[in-house]
Amino acid sequence: MFITENFLLRTPSAVNLYHNFAKPMPIIDYHSHLQPSEIADNKHFRNITEVWLSGDHYKWRAMRAAGVDERFITSNASDREKFDKWAWTVPQTLRNPLYHWTHLELARVFSITDRLLNPQTADYIWNTTNELLQQDNFTVRELIRRSNVEVICTTDDPIDTLEHHKRIAADKSCEVKVFPTFRPDKIFNINALLPNGGVPTKESLRDYNVYIDKLAAAANIKINDFDSLLEAIKIRHDYFHQHGCRLSDHGFREFNYYGTAERLTNSNCDKIFQKLRNRSPDIEQIDSIDEMVLSSVLMREIAKLDAEKGWTIQLHVGVIRNNNTRLFKQSGVDIGCDSMNSDNFITHCFSRFFDHLDKESKLPKTIVYNLNPVDGDMMATMIGNFQDGKTPGKMQYGSGWWFLDQRDGMRRQIDILSNYGLLSKFVGMLTDSRSFLSFTRHEYFRRILCDILGEEVENGLLPSDDELIGNMVNGICYNNAKEYFGFG
Amino acid sequence: MFITENFLLRTPSAVNLYHNFAKPMPIIDYHSHLQPSEIADNKHFRNITEVWLSGDHYKWRAMRAAGVDERFITSNASDREKFDKWAWTVPQTLRNPLYHWTHLELARVFSITDRLLNPQTADYIWNTTNELLQQDNFTVRELIRRSNVEVICTTDDPIDTLEHHKRIAADKSCEVKVFPTFRPDKIFNINALLPNGGVPTKESLRDYNVYIDKLAAAANIKINDFDSLLEAIKIRHDYFHQHGCRLSDHGFREFNYYGTAERLTNSNCDKIFQKLRNRSPDIEQIDSIDEMVLSSVLMREIAKLDAEKGWTIQLHVGVIRNNNTRLFKQSGVDIGCDSMNSDNFITHCFSRFFDHLDKESKLPKTIVYNLNPVDGDMMATMIGNFQDGKTPGKMQYGSGWWFLDQRDGMRRQIDILSNYGLLSKFVGMLTDSRSFLSFTRHEYFRRILCDILGEEVENGLLPSDDELIGNMVNGICYNNAKEYFGFG
Amino acid sequence: MFITENFLLRTPSAVNLYHNFAKPMPIIDYHSHLQPSEIADNKHFRNITEVWLSGDHYKWRAMRAAGVDERFITSNASDREKFDKWAWTVPQTLRNPLYHWTHLELARVFSITDRLLNPQTADYIWNTTNELLQQDNFTVRELIRRSNVEVICTTDDPIDTLEHHKRIAADKSCEVKVFPTFRPDKIFNINALLPNGGVPTKESLRDYNVYIDKLAAAANIKINDFDSLLEAIKIRHDYFHQHGCRLSDHGFREFNYYGTAERLTNSNCDKIFQKLRNRSPDIEQIDSIDEMVLSSVLMREIAKLDAEKGWTIQLHVGVIRNNNTRLFKQSGVDIGCDSMNSDNFITHCFSRFFDHLDKESKLPKTIVYNLNPVDGDMMATMIGNFQDGKTPGKMQYGSGWWFLDQRDGMRRQIDILSNYGLLSKFVGMLTDSRSFLSFTRHEYFRRILCDILGEEVENGLLPSDDELIGNMVNGICYNNAKEYFGFG
Repeated sequence: MFITENFLLRTPSAVNLYHNFAKPMPIIDYHSHLQPSEIADNKHFRNITEVWLSGDHYKWRAMRAAGVDERFITSNASDREKFDKWAWTVPQTLRNPLYHWTHLELARVFSITDRLLNPQTADYIWNTTNELLQQDNFTVRELIRRSNVEVICTTDDPIDTLEHHKRIAADKSCEVKVFPTFRPDKIFNINALLPNGGVPTKESLRDYNVYIDKLAAAANIKINDFDSLLEAIKIRHDYFHQHGCRLSDHGFREFNYYGTAERLTNSNCDKIFQKLRNRSPDIEQIDSIDEMVLSSVLMREIAKLDAEKGWTIQLHVGVIRNNNTRLFKQSGVDIGCDSMNSDNFITHCFSRFFDHLDKESKLPKTIVYNLNPVDGDMMATMIGNFQDGKTPGKMQYGSGWWFLDQRDGMRRQIDILSNYGLLSKFVGMLTDSRSFLSFTRHEYFRRILCDILGEEVENGLLPSDDELIGNMVNGICYNNAKEYFGFG
Repeated sequence: MFITENFLLRTPSAVNLYHNFAKPMPIIDYHSHLQPSEIADNKHFRNITEVWLSGDHYKWRAMRAAGVDERFITSNASDREKFDKWAWTVPQTLRNPLYHWTHLELARVFSITDRLLNPQTADYIWNTTNELLQQDNFTVRELIRRSNVEVICTTDDPIDTLEHHKRIAADKSCEVKVFPTFRPDKIFNINALLPNGGVPTKESLRDYNVYIDKLAAAANIKINDFDSLLEAIKIRHDYFHQHGCRLSDHGFREFNYYGTAERLTNSNCDKIFQKLRNRSPDIEQIDSIDEMVLSSVLMREIAKLDAEKGWTIQLHVGVIRNNNTRLFKQSGVDIGCDSMNSDNFITHCFSRFFDHLDKESKLPKTIVYNLNPVDGDMMATMIGNFQDGKTPGKMQYGSGWWFLDQRDGMRRQIDILSNYGLLSKFVGMLTDSRSFLSFTRHEYFRRILCDILGEEVENGLLPSDDELIGNMVNGICYNNAKEYFGFG
Repeated sequence: MFITENFLLRTPSAVNLYHNFAKPMPIIDYHSHLQPSEIADNKHFRNITEVWLSGDHYKWRAMRAAGVDERFITSNASDREKFDKWAWTVPQTLRNPLYHWTHLELARVFSITDRLLNPQTADYIWNTTNELLQQDNFTVRELIRRSNVEVICTTDDPIDTLEHHKRIAADKSCEVKVFPTFRPDKIFNINALLPNGGVPTKESLRDYNVYIDKLAAAANIKINDFDSLLEAIKIRHDYFHQHGCRLSDHGFREFNYYGTAERLTNSNCDKIFQKLRNRSPDIEQIDSIDEMVLSSVLMREIAKLDAEKGWTIQLHVGVIRNNNTRLFKQSGVDIGCDSMNSDNFITHCFSRFFDHLDKESKLPKTIVYNLNPVDGDMMATMIGNFQDGKTPGKMQYGSGWWFLDQRDGMRRQIDILSNYGLLSKFVGMLTDSRSFLSFTRHEYFRRILCDILGEEVENGLLPSDDELIGNMVNGICYNNAKEYFGFG
């Protein structure tokens, strides 16, 4: 047996903390990419490949590295063929987090603990899991219920109707609460406008305006200038709030917030936005400076909306996307061709961004996530400058994100937060997942947290005091998030 | 009991190394921010809040993060109220270095080892510590004497009269030797001149000239040009030397040393300085390039003075200060709104700076300190290029500074130095503190050092040879600093 | 005894993995700086200083840091004097990798395990090692044979005649296979052309053309334009291939690959190269942009040649060389005055470089090595974007290089590769050495690898399955390299 009762727990203190304090707590999964429609529909999955391999670019990267042809990854091989290729790859992933996740998910969801996935066991595991997935206690909602999930936040475009969220809210039989997250990348991230060395193309300009038109329709107003753009955003922000949304989320090419407050004004943005919107003749004069001004100000103005409603803003930094043109053309985005970015300068951008908001008392609760571990220490100390003495743990150094979502990354996040801030105020783990099997990520994190704390208790680095340490564990696993986010 | 005899020491070898080699060594605290006046006066503290909480921005940051209002931090709440808020915060700092430091200081200074600080014990600890602080063996000098401190270096402006240092030197009853450190930030760091995007304001120009006038008065010469500026600096440098100073210290916004030796000349600086000094009409032409040239050359010329007198230069890099405008306006500098900086490029600057000095045989003994851990490996390898085969350990990779002044940071500093240089030549720990309770930082460091070495002895990574390893411990704790700095 | 049978192996599982799986595997040393002439000649060394201290800048740096005068390092002291200074330095290197390497080499090569090197044992070790070095089983080839080395790759200039490689290949008595590596730094790295702030000097221009003339002679064609330059490179590439070469290797000042594919064209390069080649009057117009374009395109075109022949390209990034002008003038390059560089931006350069090649199906097998540990995570995730699903482990995150060639560095490399890629596909360690005593670096690595895996087996982080884990160990130590490089 590989996934034992005390998996990852190396000391008696760790065992005590996990089983008596961490394990019983419900899950608030405040950041995910789950499809609300699938929860509303209470979907049945046709087989293990659908629920496990479709959409999981972690696995795809591993398969490519092992030498699996793209046909079995993102293309048209059969579900069974894809599963077999994955089974063949798994033994080659030793020490990669996938090895743990794979067997933890097989153990928790399908109770398969007596064998490891490999070509010899592929038949058995294919058959066993698929049989179970036909049962009524393996629907989406049952998977959620058995994982003890209390809240799920999805990730949604401001133009989304939230119809599935409404269906879920109206369905008394659905136990889990599902809230949208406001993710306006397409509004403020005009990077896509400037694909050609900083000059918009006809296509990029058209696409942007098509999106703005949709936003206008969703808000039921006209968007002619920067003020009406902000107004439309506010209307949708209000709408999301009415449907329980309490977080916004932001991904960037690079986090830009350049220039003085005097430069980053709404009136400067209006000039730029008018050019974009009017397809004006001097559109080619729009350049990366304009892009920076517009995206910086939009980010700031959305942050103010968040602050006004008591929302939490999430900032994800340090990524470079779609590096592989060949696979991008073949399969599009989010296929495992993104990686860490070391080229951007975020110290001064962060400092100014938070400061401009704080000066106006409009800095919302904030979670920063770094993808590149080199940014972690700086970020954790930077946010400490803006703790306001009002909201406990207002500025959060977020959990291990994406590539850092593994044992070393989680340990590092916990250590950095501990050294430069207050671990006891941490709002804890999230899945950031597209899969309904991934709630085990919370278990994985909790075991690692308890392992760290337990070891330090045994080494005398922490007091041997169950109430003191257990209380902190309860907070990080559930209570802090409960209090911090203020879900309805 | 939390702070036990073998706190932080996880192996018998570590216990042996600490108790038999590290613990008995006196302390040379070659870098601190203690007030010489308080030593000269042999001050009594009115209560624990005065000695412990006033001026400690580490604690302030933690309190803000916990949700304590600024009134209880830097503002006008009573000493008891502030202490109670700190007592309330302490249990929330588990795994933050403050939790260890707090209880180590209570144990070592006040012999409180039977309880942890929290709201339940606040009364007892408030009363106990304050009672002790009234006793004659809790004056500043007694705190120093009981900590086995042999030398303290303070941090001083070149215009300082050093009157308190003179009083201490003249007072036969004062056992500790107290020397000044030459810290000329206000001379060379003309960053403050250019607050407005690289253009000096009337105010910043006036402030700078007021300071230069004071320097002229202290040196008793006129400062009209760059040569007389250097002459004034040299006069004060001589004066500090006469009063036992053997170190200079430098903090920067960013460490700049751009351009070729041909560009970074005294004559170029003279033109810039004349403009500043003469408040010339073209003063607005002074820009960040001028600032860079002037500060680079001043830094280099001061380094030469250090080299000529056998002093040690200290360079602190990687900070971004006063990020929070609101709190800056309210409470000023050094209030816990500084953090790490990732945006500066120091590799080539370091390379050129050291090289220009080395070429002229004017490179002084040097200690570099990094605030951002990402710079550590580069810096430790860079200084290795300038070890000169004359002074053992001439170029030092300094101890964990500021945010890195904790267990992980100290371990990392020791590991980096070990991997790329000679740990055995390390001049050891310092307090960098404003508090007379902080000498325990040396104990903390020594325990960590011995824990590392002891573990490796037990694992066979180091020879099990008490003399060999113990000798290195003695060196790092005391002997190396004794030999390296050459205090009188 | 310091170097015991289970040195570095802290658990029974580690002991099992090392002795039963790792230790018996032969060595494929696919990257070294050994002299092929010395293998062809089957050289005898005159004493331990010649084989151990001459050329080892790791030791030189340590000696300088300890305070040893340059005369005993790179200058004219006697071999015995130099050895004695090294013996005096060794006890001061505790925790530096040199302390382990020194005693591992004494143990493995000279069977000296009963004493540590220091001034007291210097006589004995000088006499013992020198006596052994006179024996016939201490020639170069015997040192190689006893280390169980199957393949050695040297590092060679494209203009090299490979005469020594031919002699070795023709000598039936030589058991080890010795292949050249194609290292065209002098062709594409025109940094040396622009020593003076981006303007070529008469000397640098002459040196470059002298080199290109030699290349033309070696290729037996005229080099008048960029096409003929590429043709000459191809001719030499073919020639190296015929003599067993299967790798190219590249060192840079900084890794540059700027600009769009449209800009980085052969025709743009032709204009630049013509200027260089024709010593044209507007030669001073060549600047760092030209340098970048020329070196970027040359790098790309050489990579295509590598891809066409199934070679592996090696990219070494993150170094800043010759920082100390005084020692450079005195002793030249590679004398221990190089260090890590933090100033370059390689994320986007890597992304574009790999992408341009991948789009044309001309991306060769690639190994990236980082000198600065801060680049490791980014690089390991970046290469994952270009795994092609055809060659297992095509894109390799290379082993700890130079300053990272120690226990912490190797562990970090293994951890990074594990977290973001497939450790099981790793082609393993190399010596990167100029010394025939350094094959022990493979043993050092293997012990560390097994220590990591063994500890995780015992902690339940890896399955306790000898075949599964042992198979991975065999792969990393030998089988993967055997399959990956395809030596003849």
